[in-house]
Amino acid sequence: MSTVVAPPSPAVRAAAAERLAGLATPAGALGRLGELGVWLAAAQGQCPPAPLDNVRLVIFAGDHGVARHGVSAYPPAITPAMVRTFVLGKAGVSALAAAHGIHVRVLDLGVDDDLEGVPADVQAHKVRRSSGAIHLEDALTAEETTQALAAGRAVAREEIAAGAQLLLSGDMGIGNTTPAAALVAAALGVPAEEVTGRGTGIDDKVLNHKQAVVQQALLRAGDRLDDPIETLAAVSSADLAATVGFLLEAAESGVPVLLDGLMSVACALTADRIAPGAAAWFAGGHRSTEPAQALALEKLGLEPVLDLGLRLGEGSGAVAAVPLLRSAVALLRDVALLADLIPDAPDA
Amino acid sequence: MSTVVAPPSPAVRAAAAERLAGLATPAGALGRLGELGVWLAAAQGQCPPAPLDNVRLVIFAGDHGVARHGVSAYPPAITPAMVRTFVLGKAGVSALAAAHGIHVRVLDLGVDDDLEGVPADVQAHKVRRSSGAIHLEDALTAEETTQALAAGRAVAREEIAAGAQLLLSGDMGIGNTTPAAALVAAALGVPAEEVTGRGTGIDDKVLNHKQAVVQQALLRAGDRLDDPIETLAAVSSADLAATVGFLLEAAESGVPVLLDGLMSVACALTADRIAPGAAAWFAGGHRSTEPAQALALEKLGLEPVLDLGLRLGEGSGAVAAVPLLRSAVALLRDVALLADLIPDAPDA
Repeated sequence: MSTVVAPPSPAVRAAAAERLAGLATPAGALGRLGELGVWLAAAQGQCPPAPLDNVRLVIFAGDHGVARHGVSAYPPAITPAMVRTFVLGKAGVSALAAAHGIHVRVLDLGVDDDLEGVPADVQAHKVRRSSGAIHLEDALTAEETTQALAAGRAVAREEIAAGAQLLLSGDMGIGNTTPAAALVAAALGVPAEEVTGRGTGIDDKVLNHKQAVVQQALLRAGDRLDDPIETLAAVSSADLAATVGFLLEAAESGVPVLLDGLMSVACALTADRIAPGAAAWFAGGHRSTEPAQALALEKLGLEPVLDLGLRLGEGSGAVAAVPLLRSAVALLRDVALLADLIPDAPDA
Repeated sequence: MSTVVAPPSPAVRAAAAERLAGLATPAGALGRLGELGVWLAAAQGQCPPAPLDNVRLVIFAGDHGVARHGVSAYPPAITPAMVRTFVLGKAGVSALAAAHGIHVRVLDLGVDDDLEGVPADVQAHKVRRSSGAIHLEDALTAEETTQALAAGRAVAREEIAAGAQLLLSGDMGIGNTTPAAALVAAALGVPAEEVTGRGTGIDDKVLNHKQAVVQQALLRAGDRLDDPIETLAAVSSADLAATVGFLLEAAESGVPVLLDGLMSVACALTADRIAPGAAAWFAGGHRSTEPAQALALEKLGLEPVLDLGLRLGEGSGAVAAVPLLRSAVALLRDVALLADLIPDAPDA
């Protein structure tokens, strides 16, 4: 599992950069959209890149033992309620995905509820009910960790088989910014106070407590944080471990991923620890308000395309950013080459 | 012409803010997308707002006498060549607009070319060939200024009659960042060095010269800069004055506008000088690399939704930002209300 991941095609990247430079636009005028077009061409292995008609989001849902220890503004019962809302297509990300023609799939990896009446395929990959309270106990057993990683990989394969040209990962789970912050702290070797944020909107007092919970989790895990798989068992959750598997499989299969907020980026960072080079297949969708997300993006060398103060989760930031990747593709595909328009023009 | 413009509906704004607060999302979690949805609802006069199916861009093209005085990296012959490229649908903004279902219309207000063979409607509003070199002479006569403003207003009325739910203004004209910088300097009372930027990519030496040209234009115009219409005659151009008319008509007709880069924002600032309150109908599409655009946006109280290092012009930044307004509408329209999902939930 720990092999180095091959990067997107250097040859196609070079061809795409040459095409970008030859477009009938001033040099560098397309800014980030030019860079993203080149990246997508390399990831697709073709220049110009194909339009992104088949974009697929998977929302990994799960509960977290820490949510019963005062780290969130919301009660755990919100998690199953939101899974039902995704199934109804009435959540924030549902509205965004419908507006932009993006396929949405929600999976229960570890919701602390039987979700009676919800379609069975939502629970097809369920690992357990909730995950351990990471400041007191491991999130997952070794077997559960393996199972969750494998589940995420299987889901990615299914989405790729369905024709995914771009994958997105989303999250749902009250309390999930606590284990995600711990994953980032483990990867970067930084203390709890640098990674702990306000999640859906906690006050200073709860923030201090949450920071103590993260610090306790990191201390409890100790040297096991040097190993990314052990890290997942100790301080993540079934939904986050599955997200890591999903991102690993995408990168190893050569399918690009547009990352979302903290959970998505924390899992991308962990995937890149497990399989160095995976990050070359990821682009940053949006900048969330969580400090750990900024640290993880910086470590991954990713600058997100959107910065709108979103802190909804669900994959919403990635979904909102998809039209910008479509813009990038359209520019590299459909703009005239200067040489075709003005054959005697100087190089621009 | 100088009446105060009525703002978007305060009553609908209040209703939209209340709906936003009642969505099944954490308070404030939608960030800028929540604010934009409320603004669009107020501008449309209905909550929830209608989907933005009919979005229309008008590109105002024209040449500038200063372009023959060493202020640009490109020769004036590029302007008519790009108008032909828009007509062919092969420019950067053409590709973006096609990708996002946005209607594009290009108009020659003052291109220094007869544009033989180009469809006649492109020249239906032409005011003159080129505009005066603003550091040496007025850009326009008083009559031409009136004519250009009226042309822009007429075009806005035509686009509104075609069902525009959102209007965008784009620009094309080698040298146009020089008069646009002068418009911003005139509106803000700041010197040339604060507003002069690199346009499509000039070096330090050309930048210094361009700054001197802007300063000379401002000195030449003198006290006439206290009057926004006199400012247009002295230091703008036919295409920029028409853009001002277009934006005035949109605001006075109650149709929201998504602004683009420097030219669009400089004209928005001028429109708000002519008709105070017009800016309430404008939103910021993208942050360009031009310093004058940042100053003008700040004065208008607008924070753009995108910041991608774009400096293509053509309306491209506004077009790339349209999907974010569509996201804003989708969230306010299609997300469940918390009260419907969990009738006994506490206020969130």
